[in-house]
Amino acid sequence: MNFGSDNISGIHPKILEAIVEGNKGTDNSYGGDASTAALKEKLKEVFEHDLVYYFASTGTAANCLALSALCPPYGTILCSDSAHILTDECTAPYFFTGGARLMHRSKSPSKFDPKLISETINFSNYLRPHAGKPVVVSIAQTTELGQVYTLEEIKEICDEAHKYGLKVHMDGARFANALVNLNCTPAEMSWKAGVDVLTFGATKNGGLHGELIIFFNPSDAENFDFIHKRSGQLMSKTRFFAMQMLAYLKDDLWLELARHSNAMAKRLADGVKDVPCIKPWLPLKTNEFFIVLPKELAEKLYKAGAHFYEWEGNLSLYRWVTSWQTTEKEVDDFVALIKSLL
Amino acid sequence: MNFGSDNISGIHPKILEAIVEGNKGTDNSYGGDASTAALKEKLKEVFEHDLVYYFASTGTAANCLALSALCPPYGTILCSDSAHILTDECTAPYFFTGGARLMHRSKSPSKFDPKLISETINFSNYLRPHAGKPVVVSIAQTTELGQVYTLEEIKEICDEAHKYGLKVHMDGARFANALVNLNCTPAEMSWKAGVDVLTFGATKNGGLHGELIIFFNPSDAENFDFIHKRSGQLMSKTRFFAMQMLAYLKDDLWLELARHSNAMAKRLADGVKDVPCIKPWLPLKTNEFFIVLPKELAEKLYKAGAHFYEWEGNLSLYRWVTSWQTTEKEVDDFVALIKSLL
Amino acid sequence: MNFGSDNISGIHPKILEAIVEGNKGTDNSYGGDASTAALKEKLKEVFEHDLVYYFASTGTAANCLALSALCPPYGTILCSDSAHILTDECTAPYFFTGGARLMHRSKSPSKFDPKLISETINFSNYLRPHAGKPVVVSIAQTTELGQVYTLEEIKEICDEAHKYGLKVHMDGARFANALVNLNCTPAEMSWKAGVDVLTFGATKNGGLHGELIIFFNPSDAENFDFIHKRSGQLMSKTRFFAMQMLAYLKDDLWLELARHSNAMAKRLADGVKDVPCIKPWLPLKTNEFFIVLPKELAEKLYKAGAHFYEWEGNLSLYRWVTSWQTTEKEVDDFVALIKSLL
Amino acid sequence: MNFGSDNISGIHPKILEAIVEGNKGTDNSYGGDASTAALKEKLKEVFEHDLVYYFASTGTAANCLALSALCPPYGTILCSDSAHILTDECTAPYFFTGGARLMHRSKSPSKFDPKLISETINFSNYLRPHAGKPVVVSIAQTTELGQVYTLEEIKEICDEAHKYGLKVHMDGARFANALVNLNCTPAEMSWKAGVDVLTFGATKNGGLHGELIIFFNPSDAENFDFIHKRSGQLMSKTRFFAMQMLAYLKDDLWLELARHSNAMAKRLADGVKDVPCIKPWLPLKTNEFFIVLPKELAEKLYKAGAHFYEWEGNLSLYRWVTSWQTTEKEVDDFVALIKSLL
Repeated sequence: MNFGSDNISGIHPKILEAIVEGNKGTDNSYGGDASTAALKEKLKEVFEHDLVYYFASTGTAANCLALSALCPPYGTILCSDSAHILTDECTAPYFFTGGARLMHRSKSPSKFDPKLISETINFSNYLRPHAGKPVVVSIAQTTELGQVYTLEEIKEICDEAHKYGLKVHMDGARFANALVNLNCTPAEMSWKAGVDVLTFGATKNGGLHGELIIFFNPSDAENFDFIHKRSGQLMSKTRFFAMQMLAYLKDDLWLELARHSNAMAKRLADGVKDVPCIKPWLPLKTNEFFIVLPKELAEKLYKAGAHFYEWEGNLSLYRWVTSWQTTEKEVDDFVALIKSLL
Repeated sequence: MNFGSDNISGIHPKILEAIVEGNKGTDNSYGGDASTAALKEKLKEVFEHDLVYYFASTGTAANCLALSALCPPYGTILCSDSAHILTDECTAPYFFTGGARLMHRSKSPSKFDPKLISETINFSNYLRPHAGKPVVVSIAQTTELGQVYTLEEIKEICDEAHKYGLKVHMDGARFANALVNLNCTPAEMSWKAGVDVLTFGATKNGGLHGELIIFFNPSDAENFDFIHKRSGQLMSKTRFFAMQMLAYLKDDLWLELARHSNAMAKRLADGVKDVPCIKPWLPLKTNEFFIVLPKELAEKLYKAGAHFYEWEGNLSLYRWVTSWQTTEKEVDDFVALIKSLL
Repeated sequence: MNFGSDNISGIHPKILEAIVEGNKGTDNSYGGDASTAALKEKLKEVFEHDLVYYFASTGTAANCLALSALCPPYGTILCSDSAHILTDECTAPYFFTGGARLMHRSKSPSKFDPKLISETINFSNYLRPHAGKPVVVSIAQTTELGQVYTLEEIKEICDEAHKYGLKVHMDGARFANALVNLNCTPAEMSWKAGVDVLTFGATKNGGLHGELIIFFNPSDAENFDFIHKRSGQLMSKTRFFAMQMLAYLKDDLWLELARHSNAMAKRLADGVKDVPCIKPWLPLKTNEFFIVLPKELAEKLYKAGAHFYEWEGNLSLYRWVTSWQTTEKEVDDFVALIKSLL
Repeated sequence: MNFGSDNISGIHPKILEAIVEGNKGTDNSYGGDASTAALKEKLKEVFEHDLVYYFASTGTAANCLALSALCPPYGTILCSDSAHILTDECTAPYFFTGGARLMHRSKSPSKFDPKLISETINFSNYLRPHAGKPVVVSIAQTTELGQVYTLEEIKEICDEAHKYGLKVHMDGARFANALVNLNCTPAEMSWKAGVDVLTFGATKNGGLHGELIIFFNPSDAENFDFIHKRSGQLMSKTRFFAMQMLAYLKDDLWLELARHSNAMAKRLADGVKDVPCIKPWLPLKTNEFFIVLPKELAEKLYKAGAHFYEWEGNLSLYRWVTSWQTTEKEVDDFVALIKSLL
């Protein structure tokens, strides 16, 4: 019973099969192969837009590379208090950008408040150059706390950012889970709402490992090949990454997997709905369920072999995550275990 | 009537005279001169401790170099929400440390809460390596908001930091102003309370320009000559900086100037004490007076030629700063102007 | 007929099979899985020494992370004029180390001359801090130009480096090819000769993608988990990388593949031995053959569909590389093509 | 008898006097004062061109800030083998640029060979992105070895650089010494020849300390205030730096001092012309005389109290430098000492 993260899951059989099928003979390295080219066409179809994409081996690398493409070393990146890039990537964003600042002044949990953009711009202009230069807004869809921005909310943030010349980055490590929650198109949730650069994750949703950095304005990526190479992310056998992604996107496999994952979280939430000592901390939207739980119950569950994380120890906050591989039985067993321990 | 900052002041005559007197013939460059050596002895006397010191041309450089000596690029620096290094040095701390993180979780305005140290350590250990490695605590004495830590408060922070293996940096851009407020010795307010590295400012208090980085544990500075050189702060004609500092410290000139500066702020605060629409935002401790003021009054004062800064525009917060050069007449004229505009 | 690089090759079937076999159920992420632990034991057996290892997704990342673990931002890394880290990784070493210097003063092609160590140390001490602080020597085995250091040569470099307190990094992107050339043990070619940190490559020799950073002194890796995470190289599903590496090392598959690869290069060299206009530029030692070729012949070969690289255009230098997947027929066809074009 | 460097000299009386005269009352900080504005007008007059300038406290900072304004972290800077930025600034250029590469492929001592530009461009394009992106050419006038580019040589380098979209930086730590050697105008030796950004030194030629970064294309400096601030080089009391520079430039004081300095070097060279064991290593052009000297003679001179530097120990190369403060008597005494020791 492992609800620790969606990255404990394996590789979806269809994705691994694509690598096995494609592992024939030799092909050009460093992106010069046919699969890497085919993926570009597939992504243009999925996103209904011209784009430039790059591979990254982790979400950390994908996010931070995207930020470093948009933000010079002297720039400031606006994000929310709970942003993954702020709280959970060691010092990666500072490293990749060459020392840009992450500024988080958001007060509401989880989501970025667009009003902060004009406030920060005014403040920074008044104190120029002392308070730095705001250059990028970074939001996550799904957010670090499992929440989902509505299309209107994304649009409002992007419009406000663009009004002041800022670019918008979207951390889409769990893009698919939010997409099926909103039931909209990938285009609607990205460039149509104003997103400039998207980190598009697949690892948590069935991939071996593979994240994409997608630039909807090719000019933003003009010298990105150098940035990508110097960060150690230009892999030689790119074709196997492209094959993974092609299988992931084929016949909407990625959406199917995300739907399953979200559904399992819903089943879990429903299962404990009537347990009085378990309270949702934030509404369940995708495959991450944030709950308030008595510490003693958590300890009992750990002892009984369940695996999941405290969010902030002192507040009795916990996170349960489901994945494409989570089964109904696992959920039901977990619910039964919880109830048996009350 | 300029109450904008203490760095609008000029050079104290005795300090400039020391340069004029010392400007004779040639001498070795890059720290190999007699004055640079003499200053080391003088500092050891003033601080009653062995130490290693380096020059920096600005407070930004001094603070950030001190931090970079203590904190590797992958480390985290704990500071308060209002820390100057966080809010007012563009992205300098990230640049100098090679991408370390500034973590500010303090909720109380102005001062750093020592309880955050163990909380952050526990949190970071639980999430290692994702949440980074806390390595340094940085406090400012005087704080960015003009407040003064008591010796007990400094000791508590340092003890807590050392307990977990963290070093403590003190930003002493206005060290003198706090020192005369506490009426203690330089040693008591620094290494005796547990401070490892001190940024010791003189520019705001009568210098031409000159800040020192003082290491109370020489081993912390083992390779600092390389760090210092690569940052562009190894000046060639160091003797003229040393002469400044020797004059600054001679016969307690620095304390006399700070006492005057604080007294002028007190005179100003007393002068407006009975003005109902002017409220101290924080208690006056040194030479910076933070007040809540009606925006209209501020505008009128600006129009009448007074110069001072808004702190955060939307909250009607303002700052009035006095310096070693501020005269009683200037203060009285400003008070009179205020009263005439009510 | 592709002799462009060994990274055009695919995944060895046994390695891919290991992933397919291991793709069952869920397992802990970020290195907490059983395969990742098993690989550590296997590596200790192969290298006959205690060690700490980390995964990297590319050779660039592996080399630069290794260097950044050994060298602070203010340090200098000594290497040869033709070092891959110098010539072929964009600006990655500067990026990963936070701005260390690569100093190449070697005059002999390809190999690092150990005499440069004491010379550089003396020079740097005399000019301290202006000329920087030598901290690491980095050599490649196989070198960028296909050459192989003898065990004595490695030992001489390491002894000289250690004498002055420098650490030694070995870039082992083609470690296996050199190993079978020397016909010695992995231990002899690494820590027994004095190497402190080894970049151990598998991608070019049958892997999907996977390089290891191996620390023979665990204390060198004390805080490396933070450095690794912040560089975007902490992959979540580490088990699949470990499985690859376990299959790679099992029953000496890696040595068998390197032997084949070297043998194919030998066959190619033998095939063109009697072609007067093709001259070896450097002696063939492994799977990379550097030759001087008339530009017109190269052009004809390109036209006929052969793929390989110029080394330095203006000198008529070319490189032919074989891999674990190169067949005798491919080599013979290429030789026949060459002869047909004379 | 100190011929170690021109930075052992003191402050020219007229320059120090300007500070003493100007030290009256308060004035705005951070560049908002009248002197800082007046200096801009004076520089425009001296250089006969629109420009933007910034202060730096050292030549290292000035050079590296200039480079970081022109070159992104992923870029490559072309320079000569003996460039000061390469050999003598610890790792400062890597630090300031965020990890750009210095590429030195020049074979001729001292001067940069413009043919390398197209060669490097071709090479980098062929290997893109592996070999990096050439972005800037940096030359020094006077060069690190005391040589002077002719106007035609500068023009040829700049034309070639601009042809490929590269910018040109000139390290002018000893700009004045070269200028009086060429007997041309500041404009001719900078923007008229194609220089984009000039580091303009005064410290070695009579200043207290003060270097300028001069942008001849204001658009190159669009966000430079942020870069400047984050590097710790935005000094608060800028007026005293501006006053220095105004005095330095007034009535051609700077040229007069440089002429004297060069003349003293000439007198020294003439004095030892007939000493058979002292051979000029490079022709004397300015105030630095590079000679080949028997090691034993150097040792005797050191023992007799003379101060000067070995250039590269193993080659018996030495450097004698004169300054604005060197007197005829000092030169004559040194010559007499040399002759007495033969």
